[in-house]
Amino acid sequence: MLNTTGFHVAVVGATGAVGQQMLQTLEKRDFPIKQLTLLSSARSAGSTVLFKGKEWTVEEAKPESFEGVDIALFSAGGSVSKLLAPEAVKRGAVVVDNTSAYRMDPDVPLVVPEVNEEDIKLHNGIIANPNCSTIQMVAALEPIRKQYGLKKVIVSTYQAVSGAGAVAIDELHAQSQAILSGESFEPGVLPVKGDKKHYQIAYNAIPQIDTFQENGFTFEEMKMINETKKIMHMPSLKVSATCVRLPVVTGHSESVYIEIEKDSVSVKDIHALLQDAPGVTLEDVPEEQIYPMPAHAVGKPDVFVGRVRKDLDEERGFHMWVVSDNLLKGAAWNSVQIAESLMNLGLIK
Amino acid sequence: MLNTTGFHVAVVGATGAVGQQMLQTLEKRDFPIKQLTLLSSARSAGSTVLFKGKEWTVEEAKPESFEGVDIALFSAGGSVSKLLAPEAVKRGAVVVDNTSAYRMDPDVPLVVPEVNEEDIKLHNGIIANPNCSTIQMVAALEPIRKQYGLKKVIVSTYQAVSGAGAVAIDELHAQSQAILSGESFEPGVLPVKGDKKHYQIAYNAIPQIDTFQENGFTFEEMKMINETKKIMHMPSLKVSATCVRLPVVTGHSESVYIEIEKDSVSVKDIHALLQDAPGVTLEDVPEEQIYPMPAHAVGKPDVFVGRVRKDLDEERGFHMWVVSDNLLKGAAWNSVQIAESLMNLGLIK
Repeated sequence: MLNTTGFHVAVVGATGAVGQQMLQTLEKRDFPIKQLTLLSSARSAGSTVLFKGKEWTVEEAKPESFEGVDIALFSAGGSVSKLLAPEAVKRGAVVVDNTSAYRMDPDVPLVVPEVNEEDIKLHNGIIANPNCSTIQMVAALEPIRKQYGLKKVIVSTYQAVSGAGAVAIDELHAQSQAILSGESFEPGVLPVKGDKKHYQIAYNAIPQIDTFQENGFTFEEMKMINETKKIMHMPSLKVSATCVRLPVVTGHSESVYIEIEKDSVSVKDIHALLQDAPGVTLEDVPEEQIYPMPAHAVGKPDVFVGRVRKDLDEERGFHMWVVSDNLLKGAAWNSVQIAESLMNLGLIK
Repeated sequence: MLNTTGFHVAVVGATGAVGQQMLQTLEKRDFPIKQLTLLSSARSAGSTVLFKGKEWTVEEAKPESFEGVDIALFSAGGSVSKLLAPEAVKRGAVVVDNTSAYRMDPDVPLVVPEVNEEDIKLHNGIIANPNCSTIQMVAALEPIRKQYGLKKVIVSTYQAVSGAGAVAIDELHAQSQAILSGESFEPGVLPVKGDKKHYQIAYNAIPQIDTFQENGFTFEEMKMINETKKIMHMPSLKVSATCVRLPVVTGHSESVYIEIEKDSVSVKDIHALLQDAPGVTLEDVPEEQIYPMPAHAVGKPDVFVGRVRKDLDEERGFHMWVVSDNLLKGAAWNSVQIAESLMNLGLIK
């Protein structure tokens, strides 16, 4: 079952869409676990989940739950993290937090291992996992930035409903079925469960993810802007984002325009970089209609990049299309990667 | 039934998705028609369509079909237009062509009446109707260009399947049903019926519309780039496009980034322009979650604009979200508008 040596791992939010993927990823990677604590809200406590072929009962997350825990992977919403991550740290655990609660906290490293693994060393108990749409974008841009510099990013996203949880997946399926059967329905989840209005997502596109900020951008858009700058250590990078929710179950896509700092760079040069980049798979053969798509990226850990082309007017401008499984590299896999880095860097014992 | 005075109108491609919308629009606008000739390919000839409550039989389009025709609205594919539009012109008709056959021909005006109605006067028998995704974008940008100039446009599209015809709509519905029922299916239409590979469109996003060109852009992307410059009379405008097909039946959306030529312009200034712009409806109240969406734009003739916001880094940069019914303003309605302009400018009698 579990390893005889290794770590005491806690998963907070074990019954959620991302929590489930975390358990599967820990299993697939054979992460050395000598003890496993599965936690959730009071509402889901008592339910069982599968891990390594065995049923595990999920307990309600409380401060005491973290006694003896080495690594705690949090994915149960920002308010749970705000309340319990400090309690876990107080008890000696290192927290990898998949919510937005600590991402912009200057004392908390925000990490995509392919980009800024070294930042993990600066942790004070909590390491934040970035927003899903940010992770896949910076993983694709980092190899280009390293070689040619980066001045500007303009991204438009095509985001899947699973980013809004299992209820949003259910809503998309139920609405699709209702429309195909000619029945009526009442939207109740998307774009934002807690917001005032809800809109049809089936056969539609909703230009709102998370709530609106004073400046007219949504919180999701501001996450992409601010997190990109923090992860890449580029506070003055020009970044802008438009985030859109689509009737896709899993797999975020992004139309990304960048301006680099060097002249005379070709698509071939960018291809060569992406071909060798960790965690990136280049899928870019237009004449054979090979390009990334969410339906092909689901269930895979990599970030897929294609449609790389030079802007027709800007010598330093390039366009590309970036796709990844938002529950894996966008959440569970990146969190487990951080846990593996903690182990490999000797930061947990 | 028909008017006693008015024009002899021919609709070529009367049984197609756009042809049907053309007939409905002619009816709704009470366009003065004294004789109506409905034409199609040999394959669809003999079928009947409704106009003003009466069934009309569709005939096979031949050169002789255009004898006595005043206005011919073509929407039956580029090869039909190439073959028959000159025959219609030879017989004295003015052709409004909804295919890409003549759009970039320097002798053919390419017209969005809200933008360049005057160009109609230069026609030599044929007037081209632009690509659907181009029309809605230039209609939204023209009032801004007029007041503040325009230097650069970067657009990412979110396009509906009806742009690929009725077979694409059927494919989306059939695939959705198959996935919901756990059945398998074989894609056969999208992204491009005549291309080598076909991909799932249900719950997916396909970054290919029309075939790939040598430069890595698709033909749809090059249409947006070249047609925008021609319609706006701005051969050196910087334009780039990424065109993506979505599981949406009708209604194209666009995430548009622009750079204007003036400083100190506010979102309020842009709002004021769009509020008064012909053919444009401003839907932009973020705090009340009011923004355009394809599900709300279907069946309406206008171009809907929202999510207008100033770029956080570029003083002259703005973002917006532009949605319109691709079968109406993107095709049928713009064609009928051109016919109305021909009439109002006294160019047909």
